[in-house]
Amino acid sequence: MIYFRSDYSLGAHPKVMEALMKTNMEHSDGYALDEHCDHAREMVKELIGVDDCEVHMMVGGTPCNITTVSAALRAYEAVVAPRTGHIYVHETGALEAGGHRVITEEGDNGKLTPQNIDDAWLEYEDEHTVIPKMAYISNPTENGSIYSKAELKALSEKCKEKNMYLYMDGARLGCALTCEDNDLTLHDIATMTDAFYIGGTKNGALFGEVLVIRNPEINDHFRWMIKQKCGMLAKGRLLGVQFEALLEGGKNSIYFEMAAHANAMAKKLKEGIAAKGYGFDGVSQTNQIFPVLPAEKVKELEKDFFFYEWVPEKDGKIVIRLVTSWGTTEEDVDAFLKAL
Amino acid sequence: MIYFRSDYSLGAHPKVMEALMKTNMEHSDGYALDEHCDHAREMVKELIGVDDCEVHMMVGGTPCNITTVSAALRAYEAVVAPRTGHIYVHETGALEAGGHRVITEEGDNGKLTPQNIDDAWLEYEDEHTVIPKMAYISNPTENGSIYSKAELKALSEKCKEKNMYLYMDGARLGCALTCEDNDLTLHDIATMTDAFYIGGTKNGALFGEVLVIRNPEINDHFRWMIKQKCGMLAKGRLLGVQFEALLEGGKNSIYFEMAAHANAMAKKLKEGIAAKGYGFDGVSQTNQIFPVLPAEKVKELEKDFFFYEWVPEKDGKIVIRLVTSWGTTEEDVDAFLKAL
Amino acid sequence: MIYFRSDYSLGAHPKVMEALMKTNMEHSDGYALDEHCDHAREMVKELIGVDDCEVHMMVGGTPCNITTVSAALRAYEAVVAPRTGHIYVHETGALEAGGHRVITEEGDNGKLTPQNIDDAWLEYEDEHTVIPKMAYISNPTENGSIYSKAELKALSEKCKEKNMYLYMDGARLGCALTCEDNDLTLHDIATMTDAFYIGGTKNGALFGEVLVIRNPEINDHFRWMIKQKCGMLAKGRLLGVQFEALLEGGKNSIYFEMAAHANAMAKKLKEGIAAKGYGFDGVSQTNQIFPVLPAEKVKELEKDFFFYEWVPEKDGKIVIRLVTSWGTTEEDVDAFLKAL
Amino acid sequence: MIYFRSDYSLGAHPKVMEALMKTNMEHSDGYALDEHCDHAREMVKELIGVDDCEVHMMVGGTPCNITTVSAALRAYEAVVAPRTGHIYVHETGALEAGGHRVITEEGDNGKLTPQNIDDAWLEYEDEHTVIPKMAYISNPTENGSIYSKAELKALSEKCKEKNMYLYMDGARLGCALTCEDNDLTLHDIATMTDAFYIGGTKNGALFGEVLVIRNPEINDHFRWMIKQKCGMLAKGRLLGVQFEALLEGGKNSIYFEMAAHANAMAKKLKEGIAAKGYGFDGVSQTNQIFPVLPAEKVKELEKDFFFYEWVPEKDGKIVIRLVTSWGTTEEDVDAFLKAL
Repeated sequence: MIYFRSDYSLGAHPKVMEALMKTNMEHSDGYALDEHCDHAREMVKELIGVDDCEVHMMVGGTPCNITTVSAALRAYEAVVAPRTGHIYVHETGALEAGGHRVITEEGDNGKLTPQNIDDAWLEYEDEHTVIPKMAYISNPTENGSIYSKAELKALSEKCKEKNMYLYMDGARLGCALTCEDNDLTLHDIATMTDAFYIGGTKNGALFGEVLVIRNPEINDHFRWMIKQKCGMLAKGRLLGVQFEALLEGGKNSIYFEMAAHANAMAKKLKEGIAAKGYGFDGVSQTNQIFPVLPAEKVKELEKDFFFYEWVPEKDGKIVIRLVTSWGTTEEDVDAFLKAL
Repeated sequence: MIYFRSDYSLGAHPKVMEALMKTNMEHSDGYALDEHCDHAREMVKELIGVDDCEVHMMVGGTPCNITTVSAALRAYEAVVAPRTGHIYVHETGALEAGGHRVITEEGDNGKLTPQNIDDAWLEYEDEHTVIPKMAYISNPTENGSIYSKAELKALSEKCKEKNMYLYMDGARLGCALTCEDNDLTLHDIATMTDAFYIGGTKNGALFGEVLVIRNPEINDHFRWMIKQKCGMLAKGRLLGVQFEALLEGGKNSIYFEMAAHANAMAKKLKEGIAAKGYGFDGVSQTNQIFPVLPAEKVKELEKDFFFYEWVPEKDGKIVIRLVTSWGTTEEDVDAFLKAL
Repeated sequence: MIYFRSDYSLGAHPKVMEALMKTNMEHSDGYALDEHCDHAREMVKELIGVDDCEVHMMVGGTPCNITTVSAALRAYEAVVAPRTGHIYVHETGALEAGGHRVITEEGDNGKLTPQNIDDAWLEYEDEHTVIPKMAYISNPTENGSIYSKAELKALSEKCKEKNMYLYMDGARLGCALTCEDNDLTLHDIATMTDAFYIGGTKNGALFGEVLVIRNPEINDHFRWMIKQKCGMLAKGRLLGVQFEALLEGGKNSIYFEMAAHANAMAKKLKEGIAAKGYGFDGVSQTNQIFPVLPAEKVKELEKDFFFYEWVPEKDGKIVIRLVTSWGTTEEDVDAFLKAL
Repeated sequence: MIYFRSDYSLGAHPKVMEALMKTNMEHSDGYALDEHCDHAREMVKELIGVDDCEVHMMVGGTPCNITTVSAALRAYEAVVAPRTGHIYVHETGALEAGGHRVITEEGDNGKLTPQNIDDAWLEYEDEHTVIPKMAYISNPTENGSIYSKAELKALSEKCKEKNMYLYMDGARLGCALTCEDNDLTLHDIATMTDAFYIGGTKNGALFGEVLVIRNPEINDHFRWMIKQKCGMLAKGRLLGVQFEALLEGGKNSIYFEMAAHANAMAKKLKEGIAAKGYGFDGVSQTNQIFPVLPAEKVKELEKDFFFYEWVPEKDGKIVIRLVTSWGTTEEDVDAFLKAL
């Protein structure tokens, strides 16, 4: 069985495992208050070229999203997101369980637009209505698309105009940044958003994400929020050790190398599928693609390949999702294309 | 100044005030555990022609909605509602503050359709997604439209098919039931929904709504939920006394007389406005209408009449909301039409 | 049946009813944004001798407590209260349902002491623990005791030292202020607390409390919180009209007259009971007293008098609660003492 | 620096690391739906000798506690716990943030007694009060004490009598079970509680706990609750792989070997400290001990040893906490005793 199911079907990059082995018998203080975490935090600050921020070592993406929103918003404030956003679609209502509304807007190929924010504000009146206070975006989006520098700038300015926070979910941020269409830098993101995270789980870590908070309002007592939201890892140093390994070498680190590889494999897949005459649902620029295939072909492929059926059968066709990762090989891709 | 701002700008119907005066010096137990409340509950059961239900005396509409949803749903379950629904638009996110998502669908002139429910289920997958568990509808809707018997039956069947509760917000239920297009009875509503309420605040009470719960799952420990949601009134008997007065005479009670009057005044207004060549936003069948007027005309009318601008100016026109009530007089309507 | 069950077994003082009747057919805007509410707010500010505060018209005591705490605290902050406090004992966990802990301390005859606050802080460590942020007190307490000026001052200073808010639940504040042992003024309370409320429900209103917020941090977007917590009354003017009537005449108003009467009736009861050789549970200074009576005597009294058994039978004795109010007559008291 | 700070200052037992390395390049499905987790679940069922239960792979102890309570309780239900319980003391109010009260009782050396449960029920009245629905205990307790079979049986019966769930926090369960005073088996625990967990983080795993739910009411849609509470690990198989290694060999596995070693090191420490004439705070039977030492001695020890000051200095003495683990060596203990 060949996996195109997700970018977290393997363990960690060998260099991450090596680092964990090497440090295994070191004693350290808990809760990410150790030297490895401190070092990783410094590496992150250097990588993003920003020093006046706080860097939190988090276990996963949902904890990043939920803890940040909970820390940032008062009870009557809400998040604006595309209806396709992870925080709305795939977190079992964790945000609402924490007391806040996600105001969904249609978005554009998975991306939130300044117009979407204006639309959310059209529903605002007074004390009988929630106040849109944060814009949630993913980069790349759940559709595989990415934000251009101009798009992010426009969103950032719209948020400032509306006194809103801008938060970026970077579960697959490596793939956005190494995508050939990309013109954003980590420094741009760090200066245009109030908070964002650099995802590890979906790019070669066992688990773990690095959450960067620029806005001190959001950061106030943030560690209390992490603990209360059940996200404080006792052996927090595991996060520090992994990100030391992932980010070693900065822009030349395995973090970006892995992401670029995932993108390359997706591109090869996409081109091969298109060459066979099949189309796609939406336009992806990164490591998730959504071919539209005949239902019977899908059933046949499922014998040897593991992937999601993304949109249920309609008119004899099924949209599937193929995800590549650092662990996807040329052979995997060739096998799929051959079987198609 | 003449008020078309809301149907709660006056005090209570004189008969309600009379009943409050008459019983003022009676001692009774608190928290709606008194004889007036017991009597009112029996009157309601008789009026709806259903005995196996629980009737709760509530202070207001938002408490009805929020307490019912909170009692009915588990943490990962959600409500499906039209994007125009009161629970989404005008309750400051109280439902999400209680931990649940409102899944908004576009609706049809303010009404939820069986297709909307199917659409909500399209977003459902597994433990990563919330479970649509309740459909929220208002009758009449926030647009003034009403559900026909066939529409309610279709919704009720769709909810049963999907193992969902059907809940009706009846803030203005009197106006729906006395509207000339209506073919629904209270008995129909009581047998087709799991819970609904008969609104008093917007139809001649000082405050108060009667919540009817048919489904025993929702009713389990409901009084604990009322208290926890801050809705337990110490002098609960005020609710019983008011509804005794409102519902005295059943179908011939002032409750229905007042609603019919409100509808009649709205109809007169609507016809007069149309006769002057103005159009409307949406199609209302009850006591709220939404004329589209030139902005300068609106500004002029605001000198003598008090109403909401409903949709901000666009292309020189403003949608306003006019609401009539038991206290609206023919003279009020004539004055408005004359000024138009 | 003679009622000593609560101070909310009657309707409202006749002057309150008169005011409601007189204003019944006035049209006004909703949600306490009307002229009667504005006037009542001004009357309150004058009465307490403080102008830089916000006055909110609330429906009941639990809404006052819960909305204030929810508005004041961040997610990881907690309230310190005596274990006997209403917020802990009789609100069905509404505060925790809103996400906050009540740290209970033993208290002294129902009162919170500065030492209690120090004790709560002993449990504090770091991000693994909640932060005590508000002290909750009732005056009079649920035991009927009152705070002296020196006690309130000491608490107020301790709260400032610990960067905590001081909040006073004044459900029966009239009885505290008119109690013969009292040396506190409304002005003292307004200047020593961050927020407090002047209760109407238990002192002659149909319902309603006046919440005074001194600290602007707590007041930020407070009306959003009222709505979200289901406490926004559509016909809010009912609150204004009632408090205009209750507070007319300021210190000589019926508000204080009624409370003084309730205290006087309780004192007469207490002295009569003591004269018959019975003791009391705790020391009450106001309108709730807790005689300890033989179980069989209690059962006998229950035939003609309605009151709570407060502490279950033990060693053949039961603690009962007797509550007097503005509506308690000398005859009621005499009848009880005679039957004892 | 020698660590007696916690039992999670090291990485994982070498056999755990070996298993992670060996399986690192296997592809698998996410979210603990893989074969390693399935296998680990079967191993757990065999170990506890109970088949009709559900086993969930959890990331940490706080997620176990909070998710279980949230899944088990309705909004108005509460947990009874000793005031020393982890759920009250060290989880930043996560339980209350989820909407539920912890009713604290004094306990007996960290243990909850049947009398405590009766005391909690004394505060219960009706819809104005929360309903005690779950008893929370830790074994060993936060004081290091353990429950005897008779104690657990009595608690279990009391819970059944009161229609309450019994939940055991087993963060250090290995140390309880391998303690020389212990007469409980895993089978006893599984049959006397409604849910409990077997802790990995504090006994040789990188992270991870195995939550066993006997009561199907608690288990209903439990995976939705895990996700909503941010506890669903993408690479869930890491939990399965670790517990396969920890529990290999069942009662002779490294899981119990490590715990027994931790206990032995604690005993040696305790005896050595006592031999030098120092006393202890409370009576510990497991791997956490609480010596009472002169303040100046503590300051001196802190130069070479890392541990918590547990109770602030009083009368010149400080209570410290020393924790041993699988990684504590005889040399570590000897060094401490020598320095004392």
